[in-house]
Amino acid sequence: MVKVKLLITLKEGILDAQGKTIKGSLANLGYKNVKDVKVGKILELYIDAKDSEEAIKMTKEMAKKLLVNPIMEDYSIEVDES
Amino acid sequence: MVKVKLLITLKEGILDAQGKTIKGSLANLGYKNVKDVKVGKILELYIDAKDSEEAIKMTKEMAKKLLVNPIMEDYSIEVDES
Repeated sequence: MVKVKLLITLKEGILDAQGKTIKGSLANLGYKNVKDVKVGKILELYIDAKDSEEAIKMTKEMAKKLLVNPIMEDYSIEVDES
Repeated sequence: MVKVKLLITLKEGILDAQGKTIKGSLANLGYKNVKDVKVGKILELYIDAKDSEEAIKMTKEMAKKLLVNPIMEDYSIEVDES
């Protein structure tokens, strides 16, 4: 079993309303040195693959077909070796 | 400026409905060897701190005060050195 993390973030220039709201709430609590907040998603995928290379290849395919919106989102893939 | 990633995931045993839905959709596309999917959040925080140690300390405080629900969620912190 390979554990893959797919990290999905909004592309530059796409309005991140949730991030702006969190930044405002932190400022209200006194954390004014938090200059920006961006919100993204993590998908942890537990894949029955023969090795991490195969799991990464599958994850890229799944990202393109279903999991990531290429108009608005960027993604990166990390393999959890533990 | 220190960039900190706060990774927030649901605790073991909390129902992850969104993850289950994604797992089902992937199975429908033929990815039946994806055995489990867990959905979490990433918050990328850009903090005006003197070093990464200070930024991590602040992030832990903010996680406890506002960003993480300790009943349902676990979190981990990564510093982006780039």
